[in-house]
Amino acid sequence: MTEQQRIALDEMLRSLPLDLGGDVAEQRQLFAHMMESIPLAGDVVTGSGRLGGVPVVTVGIEGVRPRGTILYFHGGAYTIGAAELSAGLASELARRSRTRVVSVEYALAPESPHPAAVEDAVAAYRGLLDSGVPGHDIVLAGESAGGGLAVAAAMAIRAAGMPGPAAIYAASPWVDLTLSGRSAAAKAAADPSVTAEGLMRRARDYAGEADLRDPLISPLFGDLTGLPPLLVQVGGNEVLLDDATRLAAHAAAQDVSVRLEVTPGVPHVFVGFAAMLDEADVALGNAGNFIRAALDTQPG
Amino acid sequence: MTEQQRIALDEMLRSLPLDLGGDVAEQRQLFAHMMESIPLAGDVVTGSGRLGGVPVVTVGIEGVRPRGTILYFHGGAYTIGAAELSAGLASELARRSRTRVVSVEYALAPESPHPAAVEDAVAAYRGLLDSGVPGHDIVLAGESAGGGLAVAAAMAIRAAGMPGPAAIYAASPWVDLTLSGRSAAAKAAADPSVTAEGLMRRARDYAGEADLRDPLISPLFGDLTGLPPLLVQVGGNEVLLDDATRLAAHAAAQDVSVRLEVTPGVPHVFVGFAAMLDEADVALGNAGNFIRAALDTQPG
Repeated sequence: MTEQQRIALDEMLRSLPLDLGGDVAEQRQLFAHMMESIPLAGDVVTGSGRLGGVPVVTVGIEGVRPRGTILYFHGGAYTIGAAELSAGLASELARRSRTRVVSVEYALAPESPHPAAVEDAVAAYRGLLDSGVPGHDIVLAGESAGGGLAVAAAMAIRAAGMPGPAAIYAASPWVDLTLSGRSAAAKAAADPSVTAEGLMRRARDYAGEADLRDPLISPLFGDLTGLPPLLVQVGGNEVLLDDATRLAAHAAAQDVSVRLEVTPGVPHVFVGFAAMLDEADVALGNAGNFIRAALDTQPG
Repeated sequence: MTEQQRIALDEMLRSLPLDLGGDVAEQRQLFAHMMESIPLAGDVVTGSGRLGGVPVVTVGIEGVRPRGTILYFHGGAYTIGAAELSAGLASELARRSRTRVVSVEYALAPESPHPAAVEDAVAAYRGLLDSGVPGHDIVLAGESAGGGLAVAAAMAIRAAGMPGPAAIYAASPWVDLTLSGRSAAAKAAADPSVTAEGLMRRARDYAGEADLRDPLISPLFGDLTGLPPLLVQVGGNEVLLDDATRLAAHAAAQDVSVRLEVTPGVPHVFVGFAAMLDEADVALGNAGNFIRAALDTQPG
């Protein structure tokens, strides 16, 4: 059953006209179209607002009284996507961790290059603290570029001297915008949706004049000391596989509590396809348990 | 509480006269003395026997009807230790996964250098199959050198064309006998019990005339394709930290289902100290769940 699911998902992704390296305006439309074609579950409640001056989309589950907040960062190579478009994945996290999700509408490149996204992430986090939510009741989470942004934001939050979050959850994170991982080439044929060439074009859009190795652009090269427990999930069929494994190794070397889960045979951000993929369901269950446990561990 | 536990364990380990690089006969005695000083739980039942011609120690829990078998490989740098001496950790795995453990008394170097240990491991596995236990009801597991041996055995089992095991669990595995990981130096001060120098002496004892990079000696350099789901657990204060993170990355690159858990601030084979360390209890619980899930997933 699950092999059939994997093949079907792979074929669907390969048949899409998405091209991460294509024209941004066009790709934004195509991406929105793809994501909007996946309906939200009937019990998902979304809203919109502002947090620390930054637009946000809130995501909750009807009938679930949330304990704790996930500050969420959507994917799209820092140039594409929107909080609303990732509400499906966000809602699955809310459901499985019994939290509310606040998804940040951070500014996109190329219109707003680095450090705009990190600044928006930190401003939203500060806004959450100012609203009375303690850091230990917040988990940073994100998919793809949003996973990298979650890690970058955690470093920026630490540098700003604010109370840190309880945990970080990164799904298929993009943390090396120089694309130096071996999987960039080794998994090129296996990856049905992402190419290193496409990512490189978007990396330049995002970095602007800055060095791609800047730790807030490529957290893989950052000092992760003192960051909270980190869960990284990734598919085996990803050009970004090595971003996940190297992030886990780098964080471990710097005394961070790390959990890495690699699911073979599945694509980039496979957790976003829970409706059609058993592996996504399992991984989301693990992510939900990880987030719940982190929020339930109160500081001593 | 847990920080006090970590400090107490660290101090205990630093005060021990164990020196992995010391005289083998002397170190065997010291190691045995240390391990025998930790009493087994009252409900642990051990026995002895032979499997495929290899001596084994069986470990079970009174009142638990086991489903599935863990074929276990003890630690001790391929030169020290014994199945009986690792019965404590083995019994915790049996308890938490509701299995029986068969711990292999594989031949030790320098008396019996490579490939004796791998041959014993494969012979015991074959003996288990011959006794009527299907591969999918067997999990290979081990600590330290035993974790490396579990991975090496899985490759040898695959090469021999036998049905493979359901999963592999490796606690603080030693998989690179060339000691090329950065943690060999970077974690030297933090590691209270293991030194790269000591390991290097034992690596030469074990390899004999063979190349330390032989995949059955250093599975990190092996082809792991087709191996079953792998759980790797490691402490942050280990010179062998990079063995764990690189094994996870290497297996992931070869399409193995991988889970890596890094617990900061704890020493080599910290899961062996469940009685005095909360982190060990948590990690063993995860290991038990992983083993149980792998055994409950029957081949389609």
